[in-house]
Amino acid sequence: MAFEPVTRDGETEFARIDHHRSLRTGFPEVIWGPGKTPEQIGQIMQVMRDRHPVVMATRIDPEVYLQLDELLPGLVYYRSARICATAIPPIEPEYPGTIGVVCAGTADLPVAEEAAVTAELCGFRVQRLWDVGVAGIHRLLANRHILMESDVLIVVAGMEGALPSVVAGLVEAPAIAVPTSIGYGASFNGLAALLGMLNSCAAGLGVVNIDNGFGAAMLAAKILRTRNQVA
Amino acid sequence: MAFEPVTRDGETEFARIDHHRSLRTGFPEVIWGPGKTPEQIGQIMQVMRDRHPVVMATRIDPEVYLQLDELLPGLVYYRSARICATAIPPIEPEYPGTIGVVCAGTADLPVAEEAAVTAELCGFRVQRLWDVGVAGIHRLLANRHILMESDVLIVVAGMEGALPSVVAGLVEAPAIAVPTSIGYGASFNGLAALLGMLNSCAAGLGVVNIDNGFGAAMLAAKILRTRNQVA
Amino acid sequence: MAFEPVTRDGETEFARIDHHRSLRTGFPEVIWGPGKTPEQIGQIMQVMRDRHPVVMATRIDPEVYLQLDELLPGLVYYRSARICATAIPPIEPEYPGTIGVVCAGTADLPVAEEAAVTAELCGFRVQRLWDVGVAGIHRLLANRHILMESDVLIVVAGMEGALPSVVAGLVEAPAIAVPTSIGYGASFNGLAALLGMLNSCAAGLGVVNIDNGFGAAMLAAKILRTRNQVA
Amino acid sequence: MAFEPVTRDGETEFARIDHHRSLRTGFPEVIWGPGKTPEQIGQIMQVMRDRHPVVMATRIDPEVYLQLDELLPGLVYYRSARICATAIPPIEPEYPGTIGVVCAGTADLPVAEEAAVTAELCGFRVQRLWDVGVAGIHRLLANRHILMESDVLIVVAGMEGALPSVVAGLVEAPAIAVPTSIGYGASFNGLAALLGMLNSCAAGLGVVNIDNGFGAAMLAAKILRTRNQVA
Amino acid sequence: MAFEPVTRDGETEFARIDHHRSLRTGFPEVIWGPGKTPEQIGQIMQVMRDRHPVVMATRIDPEVYLQLDELLPGLVYYRSARICATAIPPIEPEYPGTIGVVCAGTADLPVAEEAAVTAELCGFRVQRLWDVGVAGIHRLLANRHILMESDVLIVVAGMEGALPSVVAGLVEAPAIAVPTSIGYGASFNGLAALLGMLNSCAAGLGVVNIDNGFGAAMLAAKILRTRNQVA
Amino acid sequence: MAFEPVTRDGETEFARIDHHRSLRTGFPEVIWGPGKTPEQIGQIMQVMRDRHPVVMATRIDPEVYLQLDELLPGLVYYRSARICATAIPPIEPEYPGTIGVVCAGTADLPVAEEAAVTAELCGFRVQRLWDVGVAGIHRLLANRHILMESDVLIVVAGMEGALPSVVAGLVEAPAIAVPTSIGYGASFNGLAALLGMLNSCAAGLGVVNIDNGFGAAMLAAKILRTRNQVA
Amino acid sequence: MAFEPVTRDGETEFARIDHHRSLRTGFPEVIWGPGKTPEQIGQIMQVMRDRHPVVMATRIDPEVYLQLDELLPGLVYYRSARICATAIPPIEPEYPGTIGVVCAGTADLPVAEEAAVTAELCGFRVQRLWDVGVAGIHRLLANRHILMESDVLIVVAGMEGALPSVVAGLVEAPAIAVPTSIGYGASFNGLAALLGMLNSCAAGLGVVNIDNGFGAAMLAAKILRTRNQVA
Amino acid sequence: MAFEPVTRDGETEFARIDHHRSLRTGFPEVIWGPGKTPEQIGQIMQVMRDRHPVVMATRIDPEVYLQLDELLPGLVYYRSARICATAIPPIEPEYPGTIGVVCAGTADLPVAEEAAVTAELCGFRVQRLWDVGVAGIHRLLANRHILMESDVLIVVAGMEGALPSVVAGLVEAPAIAVPTSIGYGASFNGLAALLGMLNSCAAGLGVVNIDNGFGAAMLAAKILRTRNQVA
Repeated sequence: MAFEPVTRDGETEFARIDHHRSLRTGFPEVIWGPGKTPEQIGQIMQVMRDRHPVVMATRIDPEVYLQLDELLPGLVYYRSARICATAIPPIEPEYPGTIGVVCAGTADLPVAEEAAVTAELCGFRVQRLWDVGVAGIHRLLANRHILMESDVLIVVAGMEGALPSVVAGLVEAPAIAVPTSIGYGASFNGLAALLGMLNSCAAGLGVVNIDNGFGAAMLAAKILRTRNQVA
Repeated sequence: MAFEPVTRDGETEFARIDHHRSLRTGFPEVIWGPGKTPEQIGQIMQVMRDRHPVVMATRIDPEVYLQLDELLPGLVYYRSARICATAIPPIEPEYPGTIGVVCAGTADLPVAEEAAVTAELCGFRVQRLWDVGVAGIHRLLANRHILMESDVLIVVAGMEGALPSVVAGLVEAPAIAVPTSIGYGASFNGLAALLGMLNSCAAGLGVVNIDNGFGAAMLAAKILRTRNQVA
Repeated sequence: MAFEPVTRDGETEFARIDHHRSLRTGFPEVIWGPGKTPEQIGQIMQVMRDRHPVVMATRIDPEVYLQLDELLPGLVYYRSARICATAIPPIEPEYPGTIGVVCAGTADLPVAEEAAVTAELCGFRVQRLWDVGVAGIHRLLANRHILMESDVLIVVAGMEGALPSVVAGLVEAPAIAVPTSIGYGASFNGLAALLGMLNSCAAGLGVVNIDNGFGAAMLAAKILRTRNQVA
Repeated sequence: MAFEPVTRDGETEFARIDHHRSLRTGFPEVIWGPGKTPEQIGQIMQVMRDRHPVVMATRIDPEVYLQLDELLPGLVYYRSARICATAIPPIEPEYPGTIGVVCAGTADLPVAEEAAVTAELCGFRVQRLWDVGVAGIHRLLANRHILMESDVLIVVAGMEGALPSVVAGLVEAPAIAVPTSIGYGASFNGLAALLGMLNSCAAGLGVVNIDNGFGAAMLAAKILRTRNQVA
Repeated sequence: MAFEPVTRDGETEFARIDHHRSLRTGFPEVIWGPGKTPEQIGQIMQVMRDRHPVVMATRIDPEVYLQLDELLPGLVYYRSARICATAIPPIEPEYPGTIGVVCAGTADLPVAEEAAVTAELCGFRVQRLWDVGVAGIHRLLANRHILMESDVLIVVAGMEGALPSVVAGLVEAPAIAVPTSIGYGASFNGLAALLGMLNSCAAGLGVVNIDNGFGAAMLAAKILRTRNQVA
Repeated sequence: MAFEPVTRDGETEFARIDHHRSLRTGFPEVIWGPGKTPEQIGQIMQVMRDRHPVVMATRIDPEVYLQLDELLPGLVYYRSARICATAIPPIEPEYPGTIGVVCAGTADLPVAEEAAVTAELCGFRVQRLWDVGVAGIHRLLANRHILMESDVLIVVAGMEGALPSVVAGLVEAPAIAVPTSIGYGASFNGLAALLGMLNSCAAGLGVVNIDNGFGAAMLAAKILRTRNQVA
Repeated sequence: MAFEPVTRDGETEFARIDHHRSLRTGFPEVIWGPGKTPEQIGQIMQVMRDRHPVVMATRIDPEVYLQLDELLPGLVYYRSARICATAIPPIEPEYPGTIGVVCAGTADLPVAEEAAVTAELCGFRVQRLWDVGVAGIHRLLANRHILMESDVLIVVAGMEGALPSVVAGLVEAPAIAVPTSIGYGASFNGLAALLGMLNSCAAGLGVVNIDNGFGAAMLAAKILRTRNQVA
Repeated sequence: MAFEPVTRDGETEFARIDHHRSLRTGFPEVIWGPGKTPEQIGQIMQVMRDRHPVVMATRIDPEVYLQLDELLPGLVYYRSARICATAIPPIEPEYPGTIGVVCAGTADLPVAEEAAVTAELCGFRVQRLWDVGVAGIHRLLANRHILMESDVLIVVAGMEGALPSVVAGLVEAPAIAVPTSIGYGASFNGLAALLGMLNSCAAGLGVVNIDNGFGAAMLAAKILRTRNQVA
C-alpha cells in the first residue's frame, strides 16, 4: 500500500486553520467542528488554549466530545448547544450587555442554545425565553418583560418562522432572526422560515443562515462591543 | 385575408363555459374574467342573469367594467375587489353565518376584498378587519372581539404571511389562509407567504392559492352551507 | 467529563411543552412525536392522561411504541397511522358528524390513516375510501355514495395529486386536500402534489402541508365543531 | 452611421434556417415564428412554398399575420392556434388516422388549437373535445365516445394539470400530455401542471414542454406515420 | 400491547391493489414494489399468476428477490432492471414490433434495463444500444443502423440528458426520452436531464418522469399496440 | 355606473395606514410608496408632517414625485434613492454615530442611496464608498480608512454578492449585507447575491431582503440607538 | 421642486466607473451598457477613446446607438451583437490565434455575435459556425474542419443546451459553453441550458453565465494571451 | 433461483466503458469510480495499464482502494483527492506549464486535491494555495506571488463562493472556478457557491459543476496543451 505523504498539505493546512471563525479582540477562539477528526479538533484546541482564555468548538456531537474529553481533559460540553469549550460561564465580561434569546418551539432548542452558549462564552449575560411560538401569542406577551430587558434579541424559529416579526414589533432593540431546519414537507429544510424572515414586515431585522445560532451570537456580540467601545 | 371560421370551436366553447366555477345550489353564478373579452363576459352574464338572482365576474379591471357597463347597464362594480356583479349586498341569506376577513397590510386589500365581496354576494354577513399585521400585534389583539364573532375566518397576508398562525391560535373557528403576491425580492411573488402558511404551527389551517380570495370565500361558504344543511 | 446542568432549560421546557398542538375544548390532547425521546413522550402522556379523557401522540414509530408501552401500559397503537393513544374509538361524540377520508394510492395510506384515526379520536364517525386514484376513475365513481354521506371530506394523494379536484367537483361538502410525499423523480418529495392541489380548478378546496394528515383532521374537526356550536 | 455589413452572417443564416423544425417525409415545412421579423418569415415561406404543398408558421400574432398577408397573399390564419399556413384542411391524408385533442379549460384553447391545427395540416383527422376539466368529471365521461374514436390522444391542461391522468386511464390509445402556462400564483407559469403530468399515476403518458401544442402534434404524427409505414 | 385490528383497512386494500399499473389487454400484470413487504408482493403475484400468463414486479432489490424466491419458487430476477417476473423472454408476441432502447452512460443502465425488460415482457423485440453518450458522437453514428431498425425508440440519459435530441434528429420513428437521476452537483437528482429533454429542439419527443424506464416502455407498448390494432 | 361606496373600508384603512413602517422614538415617519396613489401618499405625508419633524416616503418614482410636489410644495426628492422627504440632511442627531454604506457596482447605487439617505434622515452621519467590487480588491483596500471610521457598515452588492464577506473580514464593526437584484441570467433577480451573503464565511453578518436598503438602514439605526440609550 | 444635488455621488462614481470590465493589457476598454444613459456612455467612451485604440460598449440597443452616434460620430454599431465600438475589425493582432464561435439556433445569434465581435475587437481571428444544433447533427459534422482550425471554441446554445457536449467531444481545443435564455416553458429563461452545460459528460468544459457572450470571449482571449506570453 | 444471464449487456458494456472520460493524446486514461464495483475498476485499470503510462480512477473511497490494492498491487492512493493511480508525480511533462490551485477553506480540500492531483498526473507542475478565504483577504494578498507564477488558475470554494472573483481580479491568467458542496442551510449543497461564480463580476471566468475538481483540471490541461501545441 502506498499512501500519499500526508505532509504535503498537512503543514500549511494546520498553520492557517480556523482563524477565520475567530473575532480579533475580546472574544473566544472558535473552531468549526464539521469535517475535522476529533484528533484535529483536539490538537487545535490545545494550541489555542495556551494563548486564549476561552476556546470553543461548535457542532460537536456527543461521541466526538467523549473522544475530545480523553484527549484534552477538563473540557465542558453543552449538550443541547453541541458546543465544547474550555470554560464555564459566567465569564468575566469585557463588554457588558444582555442578549435575549427567544425560541419558537422545543425542536428549535439546539440552535437557540448554540446562540445562547456562544453569547455566554463571549462574556454576555443571556436571557432565555423558550417555546413562545406565535400560535399561542399569549405566552410571548406574558413574558414581554424579558424581551424589554435585552439590549439585542436573537429570535430562533423553524416551520413558518413568524416569531421574529412579532418580537421585532414589540421591542426597540435590534433583532437578529435565525431560521431553523425544523419542519417537514413544504418547510424544505428551513427555506420557508428563511423566506419568511427575509420578508418580515418589521423594519430592521437582520437574518442569518438556516440553523446558524453561532453567527447570530457573533453579530449580537459585535453590536454590543461596538456599543461599549464607542460609549 | 382568410381567417378561420369562428364557428368551429365557438359553439361548444359557449355551451360549456364557466360552469366549473359555480357551486350547484344557493350561491351566485361566477365568471372568471381573465382571458375573456368584455363582449364574451357580457354575453355570459346576460344569459346567466336570466336564470340566477346573483351573477358575478372576478378579476375585472376598471376599463373592462366600463365596457361591461355599456353592454349590460345596471351592473355594480366593486373596485378594490375587482368584482362586477348583478346585485348589491346585503343579499337575502340562504344560509346564516358570519365570515371574518382579516388582512395584514393595506397592499393586501384587493385580495381581501375579493374574499369579502364574494362572501357577501353568497349572502353571508362579513366582518372586515384590515391592516392588523403581526409586526404591530397590539392592533390585532385590540380587535379580538371581531375575530370571536366570526363563524369562519379568512386571513389574508403577503410578505412573510405570519398572520394566519397568530389568528388561528386566538380563535376556535376554522381558519382559511390566503397568501398574496405582495412583497418584493425574496417574497418570490407570494411563495414566501405561501410556504409560511403551509408550515404554520397552528393546527387546522386550510391554505388556498396565492391571491385566491375568491377560493377562500368559496371554502368558507361551503363550510357554512354544510353547517346549515345539517343542523 | 463535565456536562452542562440539565436543569437550566429543562424546567421551562417541560412546563410549556406541546400545548400548541392541542385544541382548547372538546378534543384530545396531542403530542407531536418527532424530536422527543420515548421517556419524554411517556412523561407528557402520563401527566395529560390525568386531566383529559383522550391523549394521543403522532408520528410514533413501532419501536418507540414498544418503549412507550412498557412505560405506560394500556396504550393503543395505530400502526398505519403511526399514532399512539390512550383510548379506542368509537369515542363518545361531543359534536356529531361524518368525516370522509379518501385516498389515491396504497402508498398514501399512512397519511390517510393519520387523518382518519385523529378524526376518530376527536369523536367523529369516519368513512374510509382507499385506492381510488384518478387513473381508474370508475372506482371513485362507483363509491360516490360514500362521498355523499360525509359532512367534510379529506382527500389524500401523492404523485400528481389530482384526486382532490375530482372529488371536490363531485360533492357539495367542503374538502381538504392533503398532498403526500409519495412519488419519485419530479415529484420532488410531494411538491408536485402540493402545487397541483393549490392550483385546483375546483373552487373551495383548502390545502395543508405535505403528509399533514393530522392537520387536515384538525381542520375538519374545527369545521364540524363550528357547525354544532352554532346550530 | 456605420452599420455592420449584413452579409457576414446573413447568407449562412438563411441557408440553414428552420429546417430543424421540419420532419423529413410527408409533413409540412414548419417555421418557428418568435425572433423573426415578418419579412424574414415571409421570405422563408415563399421559398418553401415552391417546394412543398403545405408550409406553416407557428406563434404568429395577429399583427404579424396582417403584415404577412400583404407580403404573401393567400395565406390562411388560424387565430386561436396562432398558426399561419399556405393551405386549408382537410388536406389529402398521406397517413390515415384520428388524433383526439382534449382540453381542460377555455383558457387552454390556444395551445390545444396549436396542436389541433398542426395535426390537421399534417393530414390527420382531428377530434376536438373542449372544456372537460376534472372538476366536472361528468362532462368528460359524457363524451367518452370521442376519446374512444381516437388513435392517439393529446391532452392539454393548465392549473393542476390533472386531466391527462384521467384520460389515460379511460383509453387504450397512447396519450400525450401538454401542460399550459394557464394559472396564477403557485402555478408558476405552468410548472405545477408540468410536474403533475410527469408524476401521473397513469402508465404510458408522454409529456412535452409547457405550451408546446406543436410538439405534441408532431409526436402524434410520428406515431401514426410509424403505424402506417409498418402495417 | 394493543395493536389496531388489521382487518379494518386490510380487505379493501387488497381488493383494489395494483390494478392501476396494469394495462387492460395483452400486456403483463404489473406490481410496483416500493412500499410493499415481500409477503405482500408475493401474495399479489400468486393471485395474479393464476389469471395472467405474465406477471412482473418493478423496483425489486436483490434481497427482496431472495425472499420472493422462497415464497414463490420459479420467479426470474432481472438484476440490472430490478424486475422480478413469472416468465422469461422471448414471449409470444401479441403485437409485433421492435423497440430500440438507447442509453448514454453505463450508470444509466438500470433504468434502461427496466425499460428493455418491461418491453420484452410485453412481447416486443428489443434492440439495446448502450453507452453511446453525446460526448463521443461517433459511437452513436457507427450504430445508426440499430436506430433505424426500431419502430419506437426509448432514449435514456442522465447528466445533461442530450442524447434524445440527437437520436430524435437521426430517425423518423417516435422517440421517448427518459431522464435519469445519474449525476452530481448541479444535476439536482435528474432535474438537469429532465429540463434538457423537455426543451429539446427535436420536434416530437415525449418525456417521462426521472428514472421511469417502466413508463417509457408502457408508452412504447401502447404505440405499437395501436399500430397493430388499426392496421 | 354604480361604484361601490368608498367609505366602507376607507376609514379604517386610513386610520391604521403605514404605522407599521415607523419606529417609535426618535426616527422619521415612513411611508412605503408602492401600491398607493400620489394622492394617498400626499394626504398621509400631510397628516404626518403636522406631528413629526421628518417624514419620508420610499420607492417614489420621479413622475410620482412631480405629482407630490404639486400637492405638497416644499418636499425634497432624492432621485437615486427614490426617496421623497420633508427635510434635508444634515438633521440634528438624536443619537450620534457614523454609518458606512459600501457599494459594489454603479448599478447598485439606487439601493445603496436608499440606505444612505434613510440613515441621514434618521440623523446619522453617513460615509459613502461606491464602486468597490471584489474583482478590483485594491480599490476597497485603498479606502479601508473609510470602513474603519464607521460604527456600523451597510454593504450593498448584486451579482455574486461577495463584497460583504470581504468587508466584514476587514472591520470590527457589525455589518449588514444588502443583496440587490442587479445582474442577469443566473442571478435570478438577486437570488445569487442573497444566497452568497447568507452563506458568508465571515461570522456576524446580518442579511436583509433583496434591494431592501431601507431595512438595512433601520437595522443600523436601531443598533446605534441601542448603543446611545445604554451608554 | 428641490432635487438632490447631483455632485454628491457624481464625482466618485465617474472616477471609478467601468474599469472592472476592462482587462489590463492588450485588450479593448469595455463599457457595460445596461443602467447607463446614452449621455453617460458617450462621455465615458470619449474619455477612453483618447487613451485606448479600441473602446467598446456592450448591450447597446439600436435606439441607444442612434443617440450615441450623434454624440460621438464615427462609432461602429454591430447590430446582432448589440455592441458599439470605436474600431472595425480586422484589428492588428497583439496575440495571434483563432477563436471558433459555434451556435445552435438562429435565435442564439445575438449572444454568439456578442462573443464573436468581442473576440474580433480583441484582435483575434474568428471562425463563425451558425445554426448547427444537435437535432441535425450532420450539419455540425459536415463543418468539422471549422472546429479543427480553432485554438479555442465558444459554443452557444439555448433550449436544452446540448451542443457544447457534442463539440467538446469532437475537438482537442478547450471549449467554453454559453447558455442562452432562448426557449420557453421549462427552459426557465436559460436555466435548462445552463444546467445541461454544467452537467456535460465531456471533460474540460468551462461554463459562463446565461447570455454572457462577452464573458466567454474574455475567457477565450485570456487563454490565447497566456499561450502567447508563455511560448 | 434464476438470474438473468449476465452476458447480455456485459460485453458491450465492457468494450465501450470509460473512454468518454479520457482525453485523446498525452493525458492519463481516467475511470470514474461511482457506480462500479472494485472488481470492475480493477479490471479496467489492468487493461488500460498495458496501453498507457498513467491510469487514474476518481472518487475512490479508502475501502475501495484497499480492495483495489489487493487486486492490482502497486497502485498509489491519494487520500484527500480520493484518486487511485498507477503512477506517482512528478511525471515527465509532455506540455510544460504551472497550474495554480487555490482553495478557500479546509473543508474544500478534497475537491481542490482532486484538481491538483489530476493536474500532476497530467504532467503539469502544480502550485497549491490552501485556506485563503475572502473573509481574511490579507492571507490571499500575502501569497499573491503564488498566483502570479501560475499559467492557469483553478479556484475552489464552497459556501458563498466569492474567492474566484477576487483571484480573477488579481491575475492575468485564465481562471477556472469550482464550487463545492461545502456549507449548510441556504448553501443548498453548493448551489449558492455555483450561482455566485456564474455571476462573478470578474470577466473571463469559466465555471464547472459542483465538486468537479477533475473537470477543472481537464480544462486547465487542455488550455496548456493548446498553448504548447501551437507555440
